[in-house]
Amino acid sequence: MAPREETETEAATGETPVGAPAGASPPALGVGMVGYAFMGAAHSQGWRTAGRVFDLPARPVLAAVCGRDGKAVRAAADQHGWAAAETDWRDLIARDDVHIVDICTPGDSHAEIAVAALDAGKHVLCEKPLANSVAEAEAMTAAAERARARGQVAMVGFNYRRVPAMTYARRLIAEGRLGKLRHVRVTYLQDWLVDPDFPLTWRLQREHAGSGALGDLGAHIVDLAQYLAGEPLVGVSAMTETFVRSRPLPAGASAGLSAGGGGAAERGPVTVDDSALFTGRLASGALASFEATRMAAGRKNALRIELNGERGSLAFDLERLNELSFHDHTEPAASSGFRRILVTEPEHPYLEAWWPPGHALGYEHTFVHQARDLLHAIATGTEPEPSFADGLQVQRVLAAVEESAEKNAVYTPVLPELPAPQAL
Amino acid sequence: MAPREETETEAATGETPVGAPAGASPPALGVGMVGYAFMGAAHSQGWRTAGRVFDLPARPVLAAVCGRDGKAVRAAADQHGWAAAETDWRDLIARDDVHIVDICTPGDSHAEIAVAALDAGKHVLCEKPLANSVAEAEAMTAAAERARARGQVAMVGFNYRRVPAMTYARRLIAEGRLGKLRHVRVTYLQDWLVDPDFPLTWRLQREHAGSGALGDLGAHIVDLAQYLAGEPLVGVSAMTETFVRSRPLPAGASAGLSAGGGGAAERGPVTVDDSALFTGRLASGALASFEATRMAAGRKNALRIELNGERGSLAFDLERLNELSFHDHTEPAASSGFRRILVTEPEHPYLEAWWPPGHALGYEHTFVHQARDLLHAIATGTEPEPSFADGLQVQRVLAAVEESAEKNAVYTPVLPELPAPQAL
Amino acid sequence: MAPREETETEAATGETPVGAPAGASPPALGVGMVGYAFMGAAHSQGWRTAGRVFDLPARPVLAAVCGRDGKAVRAAADQHGWAAAETDWRDLIARDDVHIVDICTPGDSHAEIAVAALDAGKHVLCEKPLANSVAEAEAMTAAAERARARGQVAMVGFNYRRVPAMTYARRLIAEGRLGKLRHVRVTYLQDWLVDPDFPLTWRLQREHAGSGALGDLGAHIVDLAQYLAGEPLVGVSAMTETFVRSRPLPAGASAGLSAGGGGAAERGPVTVDDSALFTGRLASGALASFEATRMAAGRKNALRIELNGERGSLAFDLERLNELSFHDHTEPAASSGFRRILVTEPEHPYLEAWWPPGHALGYEHTFVHQARDLLHAIATGTEPEPSFADGLQVQRVLAAVEESAEKNAVYTPVLPELPAPQAL
Amino acid sequence: MAPREETETEAATGETPVGAPAGASPPALGVGMVGYAFMGAAHSQGWRTAGRVFDLPARPVLAAVCGRDGKAVRAAADQHGWAAAETDWRDLIARDDVHIVDICTPGDSHAEIAVAALDAGKHVLCEKPLANSVAEAEAMTAAAERARARGQVAMVGFNYRRVPAMTYARRLIAEGRLGKLRHVRVTYLQDWLVDPDFPLTWRLQREHAGSGALGDLGAHIVDLAQYLAGEPLVGVSAMTETFVRSRPLPAGASAGLSAGGGGAAERGPVTVDDSALFTGRLASGALASFEATRMAAGRKNALRIELNGERGSLAFDLERLNELSFHDHTEPAASSGFRRILVTEPEHPYLEAWWPPGHALGYEHTFVHQARDLLHAIATGTEPEPSFADGLQVQRVLAAVEESAEKNAVYTPVLPELPAPQAL
Repeated sequence: MAPREETETEAATGETPVGAPAGASPPALGVGMVGYAFMGAAHSQGWRTAGRVFDLPARPVLAAVCGRDGKAVRAAADQHGWAAAETDWRDLIARDDVHIVDICTPGDSHAEIAVAALDAGKHVLCEKPLANSVAEAEAMTAAAERARARGQVAMVGFNYRRVPAMTYARRLIAEGRLGKLRHVRVTYLQDWLVDPDFPLTWRLQREHAGSGALGDLGAHIVDLAQYLAGEPLVGVSAMTETFVRSRPLPAGASAGLSAGGGGAAERGPVTVDDSALFTGRLASGALASFEATRMAAGRKNALRIELNGERGSLAFDLERLNELSFHDHTEPAASSGFRRILVTEPEHPYLEAWWPPGHALGYEHTFVHQARDLLHAIATGTEPEPSFADGLQVQRVLAAVEESAEKNAVYTPVLPELPAPQAL
Repeated sequence: MAPREETETEAATGETPVGAPAGASPPALGVGMVGYAFMGAAHSQGWRTAGRVFDLPARPVLAAVCGRDGKAVRAAADQHGWAAAETDWRDLIARDDVHIVDICTPGDSHAEIAVAALDAGKHVLCEKPLANSVAEAEAMTAAAERARARGQVAMVGFNYRRVPAMTYARRLIAEGRLGKLRHVRVTYLQDWLVDPDFPLTWRLQREHAGSGALGDLGAHIVDLAQYLAGEPLVGVSAMTETFVRSRPLPAGASAGLSAGGGGAAERGPVTVDDSALFTGRLASGALASFEATRMAAGRKNALRIELNGERGSLAFDLERLNELSFHDHTEPAASSGFRRILVTEPEHPYLEAWWPPGHALGYEHTFVHQARDLLHAIATGTEPEPSFADGLQVQRVLAAVEESAEKNAVYTPVLPELPAPQAL
Repeated sequence: MAPREETETEAATGETPVGAPAGASPPALGVGMVGYAFMGAAHSQGWRTAGRVFDLPARPVLAAVCGRDGKAVRAAADQHGWAAAETDWRDLIARDDVHIVDICTPGDSHAEIAVAALDAGKHVLCEKPLANSVAEAEAMTAAAERARARGQVAMVGFNYRRVPAMTYARRLIAEGRLGKLRHVRVTYLQDWLVDPDFPLTWRLQREHAGSGALGDLGAHIVDLAQYLAGEPLVGVSAMTETFVRSRPLPAGASAGLSAGGGGAAERGPVTVDDSALFTGRLASGALASFEATRMAAGRKNALRIELNGERGSLAFDLERLNELSFHDHTEPAASSGFRRILVTEPEHPYLEAWWPPGHALGYEHTFVHQARDLLHAIATGTEPEPSFADGLQVQRVLAAVEESAEKNAVYTPVLPELPAPQAL
Repeated sequence: MAPREETETEAATGETPVGAPAGASPPALGVGMVGYAFMGAAHSQGWRTAGRVFDLPARPVLAAVCGRDGKAVRAAADQHGWAAAETDWRDLIARDDVHIVDICTPGDSHAEIAVAALDAGKHVLCEKPLANSVAEAEAMTAAAERARARGQVAMVGFNYRRVPAMTYARRLIAEGRLGKLRHVRVTYLQDWLVDPDFPLTWRLQREHAGSGALGDLGAHIVDLAQYLAGEPLVGVSAMTETFVRSRPLPAGASAGLSAGGGGAAERGPVTVDDSALFTGRLASGALASFEATRMAAGRKNALRIELNGERGSLAFDLERLNELSFHDHTEPAASSGFRRILVTEPEHPYLEAWWPPGHALGYEHTFVHQARDLLHAIATGTEPEPSFADGLQVQRVLAAVEESAEKNAVYTPVLPELPAPQAL
């Protein structure tokens, strides 16, 4: 039957993976993914689609997906197109047909899996935030550096760098179109915790999630700000808040904790932040402000970033991700203003392979681009961006945020401390 | 090897296609696509992805793709994931593993292929516009009706109905949220012909393309207006224009026509419209205005639609396709206004299967939704929307537009003539 | 008392009006206004404020206001700052202290008053539309031309030309920033007639209002389109509609027509259009579309205009009147887009005298600018824009619209007929 | 002559001022304004226009304006319509025809003038910020309280409270439409200092201006946030920055400081902040963020405020001051979203007296509304808002901001310290 033939064609190529750690030569690279929830679905779409759209140096093969619940992981494999299912990530890493380990689990397991995979000779793609602590992130970065010497690559999944508008913004900034940077302001606003009766999921418990809006949303905007600015944050001042301090236990959990029936749902303590608000300075002395919250009614995914420089400004809103606003301050004042660039031209990053101008891309395309870029990094042996070191830097900023929030918002350097910004 | 296993799993099910014309029962349905350019790439993405996202009654199998150039079609098959390649559409239709024929060719071949496929017992999906003439569209609709009696379905690819914001808009209108309709205004603005030296491609020659902006963009907005309003256009008044009446012949064509070398590119006549501007009346008496053009500098894909009714209004712009603007005129004036609905909630059409709120979809998702809906229609034996009869109605409107444009814009009924709108 | 002193200071100047028709020389010019409703209030604000903001060649003095109801006109004089009140416009014209007659009455009295005022040696500012018929407008234009020979000026109050964004748009177009024009599309959408029980005021009766949305809103957008394009409309194709054909008689009127009490309000026929929809061609061959309606729920004052040319495009919305969108099509595609110019820079028209950048102006400022420009025209003896001839041209377009609407939308030349657009 | 008559009519009324401190009874109230630059022009427009638009309990009379340069102040009096000119503010206060003293000078003279005026029995309107120090503001507030006992009123000119969209926002919040407040974020972005060669005016020198962006822009947004939220800020964490630390001396100043000619302009030190970035907590525990800067290229007057509560959200941008965005979080998610309310309906604050719906107001209308509200407060003997006590509270916040900025951004309570926010 026809659908078989596609596979047979692949089989018939008999080529060895390009850039495969073992030094093999065919153009296929097996991917093994750990975790298959929201991120797993998005990554699957990325792996499945990248080779259909881009001219890739290697064809990604969805070799195996891994999860603890055997039945569930098999269903996920069927749905998302993974050839095999595993229930122990160690087994996944051990597979010969897995060359890339893609880690989509919650943050508390990132370090163990990533280090093991790297040490086993695999390339690694790890979801953000890189880890739940600086120590873990340091260990991971060290492992990545060791692996790098062996030709392996390690990338962290800050996918918003791969929204074409953001990649293009970085290009404009790198070209000097903003000049000396003065301000960066970023918010990431969501509203799914506004309802005080939203249940107490694992994401709201520190032991599992590490932190709340800070690690989930804040990590994205810290990375994006540093990526776009092309320089690190050197210190922060922060406040965090948990507005709703107890929430109903989920049905199962409640049953487990309470013998009694009837009445209102039992509530448990929320142990992570609902919101994090912080300011900071970049290495150049530019001022930056950040807000990450799950309590902004009506804002669904409002990652908004604006950068102001001496020669121009840029603005972006993830809810309108095909657009970039650019103000060129070197133009005559009377005819200047923020222009809405529809980032869908063939000259824009990634767009040469997509649809004609004006035909919108969406959220999931960032994962297609991520897959593409990782495969290029593997093929060319170049360090992928964002690297684990980039992820570690974000982790250090988050740690400084938490420290500042505990110390009455006092300005707290991001370690290791850089020299103070020069007088301007 | 792992990637094989996916296929083996499929093979192991041994099920017959659901809703397959031959009465077989397995859950796989083979698709055969004719044409593999822009639309072919988009449809391929739809077929590949639908089953990964939605819970479908049948699994679409990319059986074979067809094109006249054997080498090129084989490359396209590889790129887009089609199991086989054919060079004659008659052979494609004859394949046993093809249950659905998906027609992505230019309009002049739609009728012949579609009628043959339907007569051969296949389901048909045909790109828009349905045909290049009313007569062809009538023949296709007759064939579809004959096939319908045999349990086959035929759908025309007006994919913009399947932008979730548009499907949701239709739902709001059907629920009466706009009340009695007064105005529909739609534009579809692009700018790729602004440059007078853009070459004379086949799309600019009447013998191949039928018409210009009218058939390409105008067909979309006529269908969308009628779909949303829930009623047909009954008459139109139109002007069309070809602003740039000659264009450089494409490199190859030029060589063919001219012995001489050197000098500027030779130019040939543009024989279709660059722009079409028309007004009309819906069956209810509402006024409608339409503009389709490829000469609107800076507008890349500006399909904009607004509907005003006695109880509310809706507005949409395809360049921001995740948003719908809705004004509820029954609310107190002081606190009312057009609200920007981010059409990404699980309650919105198609969104139950996609990402969390605020995570944008893009252009190509309409093709995933189209594949899903066609498969449901096949499985349930219901008439798909838009049907060939819907496509024929659009064709009749376009014919009335061309007739009016030739007759000094005089109001021209869309045939067959409906009774005049009632006094209001 | 202090407030007296201001006047005494003025008195002490003893200067004669600049540009006064009688050849006098002082820098004060007396204004006599006929009508004091909505337009009268706006014009009063213009006359009171112009000299406080701009450096004028003559100081406008609010000499007298005229209305038929003596008590009401005296109250209006008090409220709006007019020194005297008259109840017969002939008496107003006859006043020696009136050098400018400002006509703010409904259209049916424009011609008689304007011709009399011009023949009496006064400058005239007449509200739009210039008249209720072409014949009246022709007579007024003839009178203006006679008066022009005597050094008088006559201007028609198409105030939207004096929104700074519109004046600036005209400047950009005149400088060639749009290149050859292809498209003009304008709507003027309001919603105050959506409610079918809005009463039957005089504006909805043909004998008083001439026409409905067409003369009220359509006149504005026809003038604005021609002003911006810098060329006239040469022909139109039109549909008009009266969606709600009877409305409750106003309280007083109802009492007059009905002996009976109780029950629902009596209704009378609406004899003007609710909506007018028309397309047309400019002298250059550019296509234009127009929609004027009072039935667009949620649109309060949505005068929206977009112009597309070979080198760029402009867009404007009166609901955001401090902004102009400009796309420069000569820029590289990757970094181009519609830029939002905040038209509040000192380099922008009229803005040198107002607030710092970013400090918004409003609707009424158009009347301040109108007063300023009229006074400059008087002082310099130049023809003001828009002239009565401009107003007549708009009237001819409206007449062609009504004729086309009566003739099944057939394309109807605007008389006197210009040569057909050149082949392009 | 006509213009005289207006005054004679006023004179003829013979009424005594309503609410005049001396107990007189006529409906006129004399205003004496100190300062006549930007703010003076805006206030003049407010005083001149208020009685033409609103039905006021007293008619404001522009009695006298005061400035140190006799010739210049006389010219300003002429231009703006003030009956008399004074060169010493003590003389202005002493005038019998001055009942209201309107202080439009830089902040360093506010305290002395305001206290003297209040002690002399006058009503006082004082521009923001109330003073350059907390001590001054305390003295002024004490004087206002003493005066209040004598029936005088004192108001501070935070005019943005009187943008109708802001007044209406406050009404919605007071009605509970946002529910419990979670977030307030406000920026006030301008760009006139981006150019490093913008000259060193007095506004950039601490001894004259007190502070930079903080006192100028920051004062506005602190007041607006507290006004809208209906509760005070209780503590802040702040960073400030002077990006450009030296600037060219203005022509005159340079000459004064430098013997030498030729070469580039001499530069002097900027001693105030260019930018201030701070976070804080409101009494209810809501988080707030603030940014005031003159270095945001392309942002002309971007006072943007967003408030998120448990039941809804509001957003506003001063560059589009006729609009308010409102999200009602109690509506069904599928049809909810931020609605754009055009705040021009007769039901909106102040709008009953202005133009029809959709006809925009501008910046200067806030001063008309301010005049109206002050006159009502005088007539009714009610405390005006914002009172001097409100201005003092803002001053205390600014002091805490400066203290925090000096102390490494540590969280600094606004004094007098309120009890800590309750546990939520």
